[in-house]
Amino acid sequence: VRVAVLGAGRVGAAIARDLATSFQVLACDASAAPLESLSADGIATRQADLVRGGDLEEICGGVDIVVAAVPGHLGFSVAERVLRCSRPLVDISFFPEEPFALDRIARDHGVVAAVDCGVAPGTSHVLAGYASTLFERFDRYRCLVGGLPWIRHKPFEYSAPFSPADVIEEYVRPARSIRGGKVVTVAALSEVELVDLPGVGALEAFATDGLRSLLHLPMAPEMEEKTLRWPGHADLMRVFRDLGLFDEMPLELPSGIRVAPRELVAKLLFAAWTPQPGAPELTVMRVEAEGLLDGQKTRVTWDLLDQPSPELGTSSMARTTGYTCTAVVDLVARGILQGEGLVLPEHIGLLPGGWASIAAYLAARGITVTETRQPV
Amino acid sequence: VRVAVLGAGRVGAAIARDLATSFQVLACDASAAPLESLSADGIATRQADLVRGGDLEEICGGVDIVVAAVPGHLGFSVAERVLRCSRPLVDISFFPEEPFALDRIARDHGVVAAVDCGVAPGTSHVLAGYASTLFERFDRYRCLVGGLPWIRHKPFEYSAPFSPADVIEEYVRPARSIRGGKVVTVAALSEVELVDLPGVGALEAFATDGLRSLLHLPMAPEMEEKTLRWPGHADLMRVFRDLGLFDEMPLELPSGIRVAPRELVAKLLFAAWTPQPGAPELTVMRVEAEGLLDGQKTRVTWDLLDQPSPELGTSSMARTTGYTCTAVVDLVARGILQGEGLVLPEHIGLLPGGWASIAAYLAARGITVTETRQPV
Repeated sequence: VRVAVLGAGRVGAAIARDLATSFQVLACDASAAPLESLSADGIATRQADLVRGGDLEEICGGVDIVVAAVPGHLGFSVAERVLRCSRPLVDISFFPEEPFALDRIARDHGVVAAVDCGVAPGTSHVLAGYASTLFERFDRYRCLVGGLPWIRHKPFEYSAPFSPADVIEEYVRPARSIRGGKVVTVAALSEVELVDLPGVGALEAFATDGLRSLLHLPMAPEMEEKTLRWPGHADLMRVFRDLGLFDEMPLELPSGIRVAPRELVAKLLFAAWTPQPGAPELTVMRVEAEGLLDGQKTRVTWDLLDQPSPELGTSSMARTTGYTCTAVVDLVARGILQGEGLVLPEHIGLLPGGWASIAAYLAARGITVTETRQPV
Repeated sequence: VRVAVLGAGRVGAAIARDLATSFQVLACDASAAPLESLSADGIATRQADLVRGGDLEEICGGVDIVVAAVPGHLGFSVAERVLRCSRPLVDISFFPEEPFALDRIARDHGVVAAVDCGVAPGTSHVLAGYASTLFERFDRYRCLVGGLPWIRHKPFEYSAPFSPADVIEEYVRPARSIRGGKVVTVAALSEVELVDLPGVGALEAFATDGLRSLLHLPMAPEMEEKTLRWPGHADLMRVFRDLGLFDEMPLELPSGIRVAPRELVAKLLFAAWTPQPGAPELTVMRVEAEGLLDGQKTRVTWDLLDQPSPELGTSSMARTTGYTCTAVVDLVARGILQGEGLVLPEHIGLLPGGWASIAAYLAARGITVTETRQPV
């Protein structure tokens, strides 16, 4: 099986390396630099303009499956073009557009389009789907998730595994959740609570807009996703946001300069949030599902804690995000994920053995998810 | 006695109104607006360009004493020009230049130049001078001072009685103090401690560069000034400063715009820190002096708490700052402060009865300073 990986950033490179252990991989990127170390490891590479010209179509012509790990703003159009080449797509670009329009295109071309195949959304949504097969009645779903540095430096106690601009967007965009079966919206960074997690300690969880596709077909009447940080981060980010430092609307200064505060602050935060090379970091996710299980009201909790040694060279965020994606590629390659049209990760959770396959794939790469059940 | 008050801002207007109860006052300002309400109260006013042309000299020609309550960056040159007109000067502009060069000019023109006549520097320095007359051996001086809103709004719990740019400057400029008889420098906003003051409650005190002239002729081997705020303010301001938001050096943004972060942040903080009209505020100052008094190691504490009712119309900062200044004008007008050359407020404290005069003048305006002595 031949797989093209479009985008060789931190996550794309981790995906290419992992897939290369089982498949014939072609790693593609607009820049030569990120391809060099992949090439040195014996992976076929191609510098390609994925936006203009016919490079993308040419690449699709030579492979059986395509992984899209491109920047979010390119994601949707890359996905469309891959599907129009009649190639199955596994997407991890987290594009901002709704994915539903891809369903028709994928069906018309007789292929699957699996999107949002990361850790959250991704593994989190697989668990939502799995939970709904587990319970006689599914009452409540919540996901707490974050990527964090192990060494906490004041004042932010945070380093960004991706662009600060995307993190700021998370702190600004109103957070949607399902309450009483309806979509409700609260301010991002609100509803802060402390959560004590095994092997990690006290973290804070706050509202962010992470449910994505789960908002459209709620599986339970209560569903929410919250972001995890070391305690104190949300209050500080709220000061920045409420003062106007995250505003995108340009402000006219006394000197006559017009500047968008967010552009300035993102630049300063980029310097403050860039992880030190080799700095140990971790990915933490807890998914809680409550419902009726064998007639007994039960809470099932899945805890994922990934804390790789820095020597591995691949960041925890790249591992957890990338390996969920490659687990889905594996399902497609082995013919387990068949059919046509849009596939959301919650659909994979609904498949018999779907979650078990993903969990086994992650476990083989050292990412373990522990499940606990308790009556409530 | 005829007195010109140059500058009719918040402090200048309070000064003009107070002096008008005893003297013939001419209030001058570059703008017409602040003069209107003074004029309505029967005070003579004159719109004047104090920077260009001969307006300033013409004004000086018609009065006996001049008060300079102009913005700090104009202060030194206005002071020089007033002295060259051979008019006694009482200055409250807090110019950034060292005042010592004014001594020669004042002597050459046979007049006094009293500078830094506010609350701190001002009353604080008078007390330093007074303390040095009190003790057989003066060991330690410290002044804690701040202007605060009574109603604390998150996150800053602060409103600026003067321009946020000046407040930011206080948070950035290294703080000098005297330790073991030598000038030492620490970062502003450092050495945070909690101080519980009667009638106010817990405040935080942190290092700022407030000793000014006391640094040049230290009266005690240990001298420091700290700024008071509601607790938590310093940590937050440290985040802003350390991230680079208070930098004056322009930063180039991805869009090609070059902007000084401080200019942007000062604009946003101006909106956040402007007091609501009529919002109750207070001025708090504690001066502590330790030394040998009648052979016994003693701490003398002076507590100033000014908390005017909003109906008075004059802010607490304007009252405490302005009335120290008018107390000094009163000493000049009554011939008690005589001679030629530079007069610092600590010199007034050294005069027999100097502090008692200032204290009585303030008390008559409802600003009381309580003195307590205790062995240590």
